[in-house]
Amino acid sequence: MKTDVVILAAGQGSRMKSALPKVMHRLAGKPMLQHVIDSAQGLAPEGLHVVIGHGGEQVEQAMEGQTLNFVWQHEQLGTGHAVAQAMPQIGADSVVLVLYGDVPLTRADTLEQLTRIAAHGDLGLLTVTLDDPTGYGRIIRNAVGDVVAIVEHKDATEQEKLVREVNTGILALPAAALHDWLPRLSADNAQGEYYLTDVIAMAAEEGMRVRAIQPEAEQEVQGVNNRLQLAQLERWYQRQHADLLMAAGATLADPARIDVRGELSVGQDVLIDINTIFEGEVLLGEGVEIGANCIIRNARIGAGTRVDANSIIDGAVVAENAQIGPFARLRPGTEMAAGSKVGNFVETKKAVIGKGSKINHLSYIGDAEIGAEVNVGAGTITCNYDGVNKSLTRIGDGAFIGSNSSLVAPVEIGAGATVGAGSTITKTVADDQLAVARGKQVNLDNWARPQKKGS
Amino acid sequence: MKTDVVILAAGQGSRMKSALPKVMHRLAGKPMLQHVIDSAQGLAPEGLHVVIGHGGEQVEQAMEGQTLNFVWQHEQLGTGHAVAQAMPQIGADSVVLVLYGDVPLTRADTLEQLTRIAAHGDLGLLTVTLDDPTGYGRIIRNAVGDVVAIVEHKDATEQEKLVREVNTGILALPAAALHDWLPRLSADNAQGEYYLTDVIAMAAEEGMRVRAIQPEAEQEVQGVNNRLQLAQLERWYQRQHADLLMAAGATLADPARIDVRGELSVGQDVLIDINTIFEGEVLLGEGVEIGANCIIRNARIGAGTRVDANSIIDGAVVAENAQIGPFARLRPGTEMAAGSKVGNFVETKKAVIGKGSKINHLSYIGDAEIGAEVNVGAGTITCNYDGVNKSLTRIGDGAFIGSNSSLVAPVEIGAGATVGAGSTITKTVADDQLAVARGKQVNLDNWARPQKKGS
Amino acid sequence: MKTDVVILAAGQGSRMKSALPKVMHRLAGKPMLQHVIDSAQGLAPEGLHVVIGHGGEQVEQAMEGQTLNFVWQHEQLGTGHAVAQAMPQIGADSVVLVLYGDVPLTRADTLEQLTRIAAHGDLGLLTVTLDDPTGYGRIIRNAVGDVVAIVEHKDATEQEKLVREVNTGILALPAAALHDWLPRLSADNAQGEYYLTDVIAMAAEEGMRVRAIQPEAEQEVQGVNNRLQLAQLERWYQRQHADLLMAAGATLADPARIDVRGELSVGQDVLIDINTIFEGEVLLGEGVEIGANCIIRNARIGAGTRVDANSIIDGAVVAENAQIGPFARLRPGTEMAAGSKVGNFVETKKAVIGKGSKINHLSYIGDAEIGAEVNVGAGTITCNYDGVNKSLTRIGDGAFIGSNSSLVAPVEIGAGATVGAGSTITKTVADDQLAVARGKQVNLDNWARPQKKGS
Repeated sequence: MKTDVVILAAGQGSRMKSALPKVMHRLAGKPMLQHVIDSAQGLAPEGLHVVIGHGGEQVEQAMEGQTLNFVWQHEQLGTGHAVAQAMPQIGADSVVLVLYGDVPLTRADTLEQLTRIAAHGDLGLLTVTLDDPTGYGRIIRNAVGDVVAIVEHKDATEQEKLVREVNTGILALPAAALHDWLPRLSADNAQGEYYLTDVIAMAAEEGMRVRAIQPEAEQEVQGVNNRLQLAQLERWYQRQHADLLMAAGATLADPARIDVRGELSVGQDVLIDINTIFEGEVLLGEGVEIGANCIIRNARIGAGTRVDANSIIDGAVVAENAQIGPFARLRPGTEMAAGSKVGNFVETKKAVIGKGSKINHLSYIGDAEIGAEVNVGAGTITCNYDGVNKSLTRIGDGAFIGSNSSLVAPVEIGAGATVGAGSTITKTVADDQLAVARGKQVNLDNWARPQKKGS
Repeated sequence: MKTDVVILAAGQGSRMKSALPKVMHRLAGKPMLQHVIDSAQGLAPEGLHVVIGHGGEQVEQAMEGQTLNFVWQHEQLGTGHAVAQAMPQIGADSVVLVLYGDVPLTRADTLEQLTRIAAHGDLGLLTVTLDDPTGYGRIIRNAVGDVVAIVEHKDATEQEKLVREVNTGILALPAAALHDWLPRLSADNAQGEYYLTDVIAMAAEEGMRVRAIQPEAEQEVQGVNNRLQLAQLERWYQRQHADLLMAAGATLADPARIDVRGELSVGQDVLIDINTIFEGEVLLGEGVEIGANCIIRNARIGAGTRVDANSIIDGAVVAENAQIGPFARLRPGTEMAAGSKVGNFVETKKAVIGKGSKINHLSYIGDAEIGAEVNVGAGTITCNYDGVNKSLTRIGDGAFIGSNSSLVAPVEIGAGATVGAGSTITKTVADDQLAVARGKQVNLDNWARPQKKGS
Repeated sequence: MKTDVVILAAGQGSRMKSALPKVMHRLAGKPMLQHVIDSAQGLAPEGLHVVIGHGGEQVEQAMEGQTLNFVWQHEQLGTGHAVAQAMPQIGADSVVLVLYGDVPLTRADTLEQLTRIAAHGDLGLLTVTLDDPTGYGRIIRNAVGDVVAIVEHKDATEQEKLVREVNTGILALPAAALHDWLPRLSADNAQGEYYLTDVIAMAAEEGMRVRAIQPEAEQEVQGVNNRLQLAQLERWYQRQHADLLMAAGATLADPARIDVRGELSVGQDVLIDINTIFEGEVLLGEGVEIGANCIIRNARIGAGTRVDANSIIDGAVVAENAQIGPFARLRPGTEMAAGSKVGNFVETKKAVIGKGSKINHLSYIGDAEIGAEVNVGAGTITCNYDGVNKSLTRIGDGAFIGSNSSLVAPVEIGAGATVGAGSTITKTVADDQLAVARGKQVNLDNWARPQKKGS
């Protein structure tokens, strides 16, 4: 059966106090709307219709390149009206699933259950049982458990108010019925809006079964209206993710202090210390150890590698048994071979570092190709930028770069070559050569130290 | 009506196990007593009397410069005795509000309600309803809800023990009554102390209405007797603050991992990542992003500026759309113009950095004035200190400072000038000049590498 | 009375999904088994028998050097079978205490109570009362409170299922009884295993009193079967530890954000900011302040010293009133005298730093002896490594090392000597000498800046 998904994303979200449309606020590094889209894509829908309004241009732009059908709702006349805007593009033989751009965490499996009900010709409704249902529409079921009505809180009898099962607004039903019913919705209510919820009554009237299912966790149907709710949902999401990582064989020093904003894959016996952040796609091989306060983004890290505390890795590929940090920063284009080391207060960028090579302290290595078993001394700088152009530094296998050296690119240091400490190298150093470029030491006796200047 | 506030701050607080007087322990970066004083100042009191005893000199010294009337209580003879020490300086036409230096978080609004009751000629009493009132004095009310007695736990009947509303000790009443009653307090009890609480019974006896109000949150009346209670109150305070920030339009990655110790003002759409600390007065403009683990103290940061992870900013003014960090440290006197950048492992101090200028890596820039569009290479050091004097480095617009340069202050680099990498500059470089100060490169063939020394 | 402790540590722990034997997983920096061993050692046992099986070689190796009697259980035939493997080495006149390598946090005091019961000739059983006892063996007591049976959940009557006191498996009893009973255990059950628990029934039968005690906290008897449980127990342990630190006179900014993996001793009025980690043996003197995100391992830090945020200290000894950080890294062999300073982006290793000396910025100081009142300028590097050998740098009292200097070891700088900024020093500098080693500055007019290269 074909499925069309309609995502309502036109609301203003004024309680967010933001210049950003509400659905564009990020949860776990991704706009809420994108979470909904990604879950919906799991259904391989015929059409994925996003109803936009407030900030619609921003939404369209941000989602560019995805196969989405944007539908404008120019006036905010209610959820029923919003869905109606998408209906002209939905065939009568489809099933329609209605989702909300600010309810980001419904699981794909939950959505599938709803569409399966609708494919049967019934109306699938997602409900949830709350400890405190005050303010929500109560679910009234008949003897066999089918939903027969949703009673709004203000209209509910004392008896009905005791019902703790409430409507979430998420539902699926045959498109044909929706084509029939939406034009018949009335805006004759306090808000003057067309409510999608009213189709439940229509279904009941016309003898369509309304079957309710519930999500595994309440948070699946939690909407976000302000930043507090966003933060609460973020924390829940992160905690769920932490539990998955532990189940997958990673040890977390504190499951409440890890943030994953993207996809983190872990090998067996990975150790992750407190207060770490993972962004984008990160792959940690077996036995990798990540120290406290590390931030790792779009990186692959080989088995047995240790990343010490307070390191930042972005866009790097690291082989096995390497050592990074503490206080290291690997920027995009860094490639570390097996057994290589990047130590404290070292920044690398577009730097290929060979097997067993070491850059242990206080260096900037940018636009560089470094062979195997090279020792780069403390304070070494590749001068890769002349103010307009970037140039390459090449260092051969087994070279030794003395401390505080400046390598003025483009420049080549041969295999087995040595650069004396404190040298500024501007010309090629051949294999096995020693290059020195510094002033001669002069010692003056009885030097008079500077005096404190009077005020 | 005039108000006099009496703050009891003479206790030893031996359970704090501290050389510091208890009321001087900090909550959210400020001594507990200061919190109480600040709330009391909200009432614009006629007199603010602080009763001191243990460690009183330390308290007086720490609070120097504030308009406070310190009153010594040389013997610790109970709360009634403590208040009595302040009475000689309080006029009969005033209202007296009694507060405690170790109950730091009562809201100003709560205090105002109490003084309004006292201004009416009644006694205003702050009470709180606890889940477990064991050990506290129970509030006994009459048919119209007025308090008629406080019964200590040990004296309470089984019936009275069921009462969960208890006395907090915070109260306000007409000074005239207090002048009358305090001398009549008796120390004829187990502790041999004069209890302020006994004035409730006197009020009831003499027909003064005792009206109780309750705080919004229990924590408003929570006292601190040990460091665990201090930490609990700190966490509650921080969480409240986090909620306010979110309501004001800031996104917090984790409301449980932000610490504000002072005043933090946020523009709309500020993003604050995990584990940040804000101290003193900090102002973040619209759309500012603060990365994880940043510490920001007494700083103004302009709209659209991004502070990357693990940066520390103290006493700096940063304009809009600047970029800072990761691993940057801005010290007092740093001023960054629009679009400027300070990158990783860079320290700045008394440094004025012009529009669009960049100090991207591994530099120390102190006592410096840098023009616009300057590029300061990696490893650049301003040698601002000769052991006794600090001197200034001036760099003109558009200059290019090569990597690993040392600029020996006082020194001036002209506009458009270039300093070659690895140079130690001691003399003025004129506009558009190239300055180089380094040894000539010499390459020696077949250099014999050092050998491992025998043991 | 003699005590023999048998620790069962042979299980596979497949739910850990790990190449490491379960009992080797670390809690608070120490293998779980080591926690059990350390608690057991508190009893000064006659023999400490560790029954190993899965990954037994790894366990033996990791625990090398400790006085332990490793006993192999080659087939996993149940707890009774496991204990039986150790019995040949236990005398009939001893008391046997049975513990589990994956139940790491039982307090020594709890164990002592059990052995005291057994020394009386009774069977001491550790039980715990759970909110939800589903799945556990229920404790059935007689009129005087002695245990008469343990009924497994599946065999329990509805009445028995209401019992919330359950068996933990930890018990102590006279060895003679165990010698008698273990051979009589039957494996005639669903799992075909020999259960130690069955000795309870034997004790009851043969008239031995079974006396149950309970731990102070449920976590004392909590076993670890997966990484989630490990993390939960870790967090509980850390929180307990935090409370102890506060009780000892330390202020913690957030008791939920401190990790102690070893022994941390604190003087009075120590302040510890958020997100810190302490490993190994750490001693903080009175009034020491530790900034946020610091990691401190095997270090002694003197009274009044301040360690600013984001610093890492490992294997260092720091005297009083020193100042470290932010962003400092002290490696093993660092000794800082009173009043000395190591500042941002500075790494030290095997470095003795004299009274009042300062290394404030961006330096690497390794294999160095620095006198008193020395000023080491920003960007200074001790070139201690020539690719094969490490050599020493010595700096005399009151010397001034200019910024961006390279000190090529072995080298000596005399007392009161000055090194000019940007110098590479390879030869001895005598007392009070000025040494300069750098190129002469040459300024060229109207330098043509590099042009952007075409593409």
